[in-house]
Amino acid sequence: MAGATPTWRGAIHNLLEGDLGRGKSGIVLQRFIVGLILLNGVAVILESNRALHATYGWLFSLFELFSVAVFTLEYLGRVWVAVEREPFARFSPWRARIRYVLSPMALIDLLAIAPFYLALFVAIDLRYLRFFRLLRLLKLSHYFDGLRIFSEVIRREATAIAAAMLTMLILIIVSACLMFSVENAAQPGHFESITQAIWWAVVTLTTVGYGDITPITFAGKLLAMVIMMLGIGTMALPAGILAARFSEELNSRREYVSRRVATAYLDGVLDDDEEETVRRLQKELGLSREIVDRMVSSHRHLAQQRSFCSHCGERID
Amino acid sequence: MAGATPTWRGAIHNLLEGDLGRGKSGIVLQRFIVGLILLNGVAVILESNRALHATYGWLFSLFELFSVAVFTLEYLGRVWVAVEREPFARFSPWRARIRYVLSPMALIDLLAIAPFYLALFVAIDLRYLRFFRLLRLLKLSHYFDGLRIFSEVIRREATAIAAAMLTMLILIIVSACLMFSVENAAQPGHFESITQAIWWAVVTLTTVGYGDITPITFAGKLLAMVIMMLGIGTMALPAGILAARFSEELNSRREYVSRRVATAYLDGVLDDDEEETVRRLQKELGLSREIVDRMVSSHRHLAQQRSFCSHCGERID
Amino acid sequence: MAGATPTWRGAIHNLLEGDLGRGKSGIVLQRFIVGLILLNGVAVILESNRALHATYGWLFSLFELFSVAVFTLEYLGRVWVAVEREPFARFSPWRARIRYVLSPMALIDLLAIAPFYLALFVAIDLRYLRFFRLLRLLKLSHYFDGLRIFSEVIRREATAIAAAMLTMLILIIVSACLMFSVENAAQPGHFESITQAIWWAVVTLTTVGYGDITPITFAGKLLAMVIMMLGIGTMALPAGILAARFSEELNSRREYVSRRVATAYLDGVLDDDEEETVRRLQKELGLSREIVDRMVSSHRHLAQQRSFCSHCGERID
Amino acid sequence: MAGATPTWRGAIHNLLEGDLGRGKSGIVLQRFIVGLILLNGVAVILESNRALHATYGWLFSLFELFSVAVFTLEYLGRVWVAVEREPFARFSPWRARIRYVLSPMALIDLLAIAPFYLALFVAIDLRYLRFFRLLRLLKLSHYFDGLRIFSEVIRREATAIAAAMLTMLILIIVSACLMFSVENAAQPGHFESITQAIWWAVVTLTTVGYGDITPITFAGKLLAMVIMMLGIGTMALPAGILAARFSEELNSRREYVSRRVATAYLDGVLDDDEEETVRRLQKELGLSREIVDRMVSSHRHLAQQRSFCSHCGERID
Repeated sequence: MAGATPTWRGAIHNLLEGDLGRGKSGIVLQRFIVGLILLNGVAVILESNRALHATYGWLFSLFELFSVAVFTLEYLGRVWVAVEREPFARFSPWRARIRYVLSPMALIDLLAIAPFYLALFVAIDLRYLRFFRLLRLLKLSHYFDGLRIFSEVIRREATAIAAAMLTMLILIIVSACLMFSVENAAQPGHFESITQAIWWAVVTLTTVGYGDITPITFAGKLLAMVIMMLGIGTMALPAGILAARFSEELNSRREYVSRRVATAYLDGVLDDDEEETVRRLQKELGLSREIVDRMVSSHRHLAQQRSFCSHCGERID
Repeated sequence: MAGATPTWRGAIHNLLEGDLGRGKSGIVLQRFIVGLILLNGVAVILESNRALHATYGWLFSLFELFSVAVFTLEYLGRVWVAVEREPFARFSPWRARIRYVLSPMALIDLLAIAPFYLALFVAIDLRYLRFFRLLRLLKLSHYFDGLRIFSEVIRREATAIAAAMLTMLILIIVSACLMFSVENAAQPGHFESITQAIWWAVVTLTTVGYGDITPITFAGKLLAMVIMMLGIGTMALPAGILAARFSEELNSRREYVSRRVATAYLDGVLDDDEEETVRRLQKELGLSREIVDRMVSSHRHLAQQRSFCSHCGERID
Repeated sequence: MAGATPTWRGAIHNLLEGDLGRGKSGIVLQRFIVGLILLNGVAVILESNRALHATYGWLFSLFELFSVAVFTLEYLGRVWVAVEREPFARFSPWRARIRYVLSPMALIDLLAIAPFYLALFVAIDLRYLRFFRLLRLLKLSHYFDGLRIFSEVIRREATAIAAAMLTMLILIIVSACLMFSVENAAQPGHFESITQAIWWAVVTLTTVGYGDITPITFAGKLLAMVIMMLGIGTMALPAGILAARFSEELNSRREYVSRRVATAYLDGVLDDDEEETVRRLQKELGLSREIVDRMVSSHRHLAQQRSFCSHCGERID
Repeated sequence: MAGATPTWRGAIHNLLEGDLGRGKSGIVLQRFIVGLILLNGVAVILESNRALHATYGWLFSLFELFSVAVFTLEYLGRVWVAVEREPFARFSPWRARIRYVLSPMALIDLLAIAPFYLALFVAIDLRYLRFFRLLRLLKLSHYFDGLRIFSEVIRREATAIAAAMLTMLILIIVSACLMFSVENAAQPGHFESITQAIWWAVVTLTTVGYGDITPITFAGKLLAMVIMMLGIGTMALPAGILAARFSEELNSRREYVSRRVATAYLDGVLDDDEEETVRRLQKELGLSREIVDRMVSSHRHLAQQRSFCSHCGERID
């Protein structure tokens, strides 16, 4: 493998991983793999139906063999071309490949096929096999980067979210303990331990509200009402924090680009280099093209009226 | 029809489509049609009641005939005056009309009447007919443009929403598969296949929580609690993304107008042309008048104090 | 009444309505009335309990007499001092009072006492009397102006909210009609008419999810899942729009004050007049004191470093 | 104790309270206490299980003794080193300690151990003892300051939240009263008093929706649908206000720092003092490092192009 000409390896790299250079065949391959992943999810669901499994069992097995073959080829291909990846460029080919194999994305890909090969040698419970096959859906994360900003926001706000989670946890445990004290005597079958009361508290505070356990005493209902009213606010905090910080992040990125555009217009024109920088920043920071267009247009307008001194006629700045 | 004088066609165009030029009779007509659409919705609901249908069946039929007649006239009218619409101005009359007939709005209008005429020739199940009559409610979208900014935001954020949807989908399928494994043995009647478990997962993760299927084993309840806590955050993401981007969009539009106002005040005054431009932008971008008034007032204040040098008395900038 | 000296009338005006001039006795009176209103709410709830009503009926009647007496005096007092209110200053005393009597706030106050007097002459169903007594809670709106910004935002965003409401309405009706078609045959007792299906749709889309009516067919569950997933987004739109616009409104107000502070610092100092204007704006626009303090501090910092030219040493601007 | 050398006291202060100076042993101690608090929560839950309590009762008692010993030492230690705390520096040692004992944090710490000592002398119901032991979870608030911005926002927005709460309260009471009037006759067992109806209203308006009480009459269902639709909006208001203000607060802090960075770059460079000030502000105001880095980088870029006049070469401003 390592002896293959670089051209071949580069071509396959573009096919599998290329973002911009990916040609028509790359797009077809990508769609095929996305479709196969989705079909795998559907197959696991259908196969769990006993009747379907009895009748079409051989078809499901065939499909499984085919899927594993494709995903194995894809995995080997990605490992082979890992050398071409930018972050690994400075390593020797084999060290680059080992580093890639240990990256989260490659581990997900391995997890999608390893159980099949393992089951050839060891007896694995069908139940766990099915679960591992469902995890193939995680392979889809190769193809969606829209959540990248969001995951960055979550990582950065980890402490705030942890604090909100802690508040939720305390609210759940304290609610459960109080309800247990109040309702235990009246309905020992339902509130028979604090763990049971915790089930009630989580079902209630998330507003799911199955209604399998509800308070029946007056004190219990009063307490439950207070818990519900408090719960709404507390449970909405983490989502609120994330949304607010997400919005803040977007604003900050937008302002950064806007200031860059303003700087670029200090000499009155936006030359090709500057235009390219702005466009690169727009893509890198995940802003929409319309918003950046509007920035450029308004700064151009400002520049046209401002850039010449009204006294000496010379260019200002 | 095509031979009618332009004055007539223009008048009817103003009557049916005019935004600003619509006179008093145009407003009356619009309210009449909105009322008729709403009454159609009510009629379908009432007619589904057997007793009412038996007693007042003839009245419902009469109302249906009348409605179809009005909507047909409205449809033909709109097609006829399509020539006057700005985006079609450069086409020949018939090409303009064909283009209009194929636009989404015109297709909704056609859908509202076509099933009635079709049912004269082909036997259509009453059930589907009723459904198509309900779709007449979509005609209301002619008269509400408040959602325009929102639909723009949705279109532009399509990738982010798709990513959130995918996360939701994976969460639903993985939850269902795990719950099936855990609860299947304890209550085979409820968790008898993964599809049943998916029903449970969707009902739970959307926090609807009917309570028709709930976990009863300890492991099942523990798992369900984790799923609920994760679910709140995940399900709130798409709404959070939309709200944050909506807010960002509004901010960006406001800043664009603000910068234009600042530019206009560079010479110390806001002349009539500039004022008109600002007002046009306010309407185009869907900002509120109060916000733009506040911008103008604060920039005027700034301009009065800034635009003359306090030493030599000459205009600065 | 009209012959009373202005001093008396002014004093009572300050007692009842004064915002800033209200002294210690005014605050005591306000707290007394707020307490009485809340006690009225509690009394109506307790009185609906048959046992309590039988035992303590005379106490409830006495409390009712006392409350009506106090509210009547308060109402007459407010009408009398209406002449002192700023918006009515240019009218003759009686016209000012008539205008006040017709204002929403005064109508709420009248509604709180009128049913009692009416019941002396006409027989009113106890049920309606109780309802009108509950409406006394609306009198509390005299004492809370925190929602003012919010009600302004709602009024201004009326069209956007109407559009969102319409979308919700169409979603509810279409969902109900589809579910009726699918589930009617399987469980005619539950989905026996579209109105029943509408009840299901509202209970589901608001995520309340009582579970008294749930789909049982495969097609019905599939449809219900799609409706739930769509419903979350749609139902969150109005709240999202309001929150986003509320945030936008606050930003716009903050920027307005910030620009005013910047203008005030153009001469290097913030004199007493300017300080007062800034503080007045802060209160008028409902901003928090901390935020405005931070603006002032940062602009002062900027002014100190900027306001003298580094070449000639003269004040710039 | 008071006679101990300052070095010892200072070392223990750093161990227990230090934010920056806390060394490796301080971090180990902190993790040990956090773990012990969490284990206490788990123990209370497990102990409520009768079977576990019967078998491992002696282990639970031992763990309780150990926990109280550790928490008592921690409490005494914190009181002793209170003298080193900055806000108390100007008091005499004993006054500083008394002031610390009365602070909310110290009261929480006392509450965690006092019931144990009290139970040695007075007979306390086991139920209350358990509750007080659960309150030890509140000790965790020593270690999470992520919620500080949020609690500040809540305190400052107290009036807006109070107004929203009031609206919710009125909506709940009015809904309950109306439903009671409508449903009382049809199902006297469920809607037998307004308090019962209030339970229904809270369960419905928080969208928990147990389904233990639901309207069955046509009028009741119609009314309930209107209440649900209104309820979504009203219940989302407080969370919306908090999220919007939180975002506003973050924006305002970010802008404050940005203006400081701009001022610092007026002389073209960001010297060490200025850099330190900016970093201190970043930490104090709880902003993320990435956002501040982006500000600094964009202002440096601007400064490099702006700070020298292109004609005479002199420094501008």
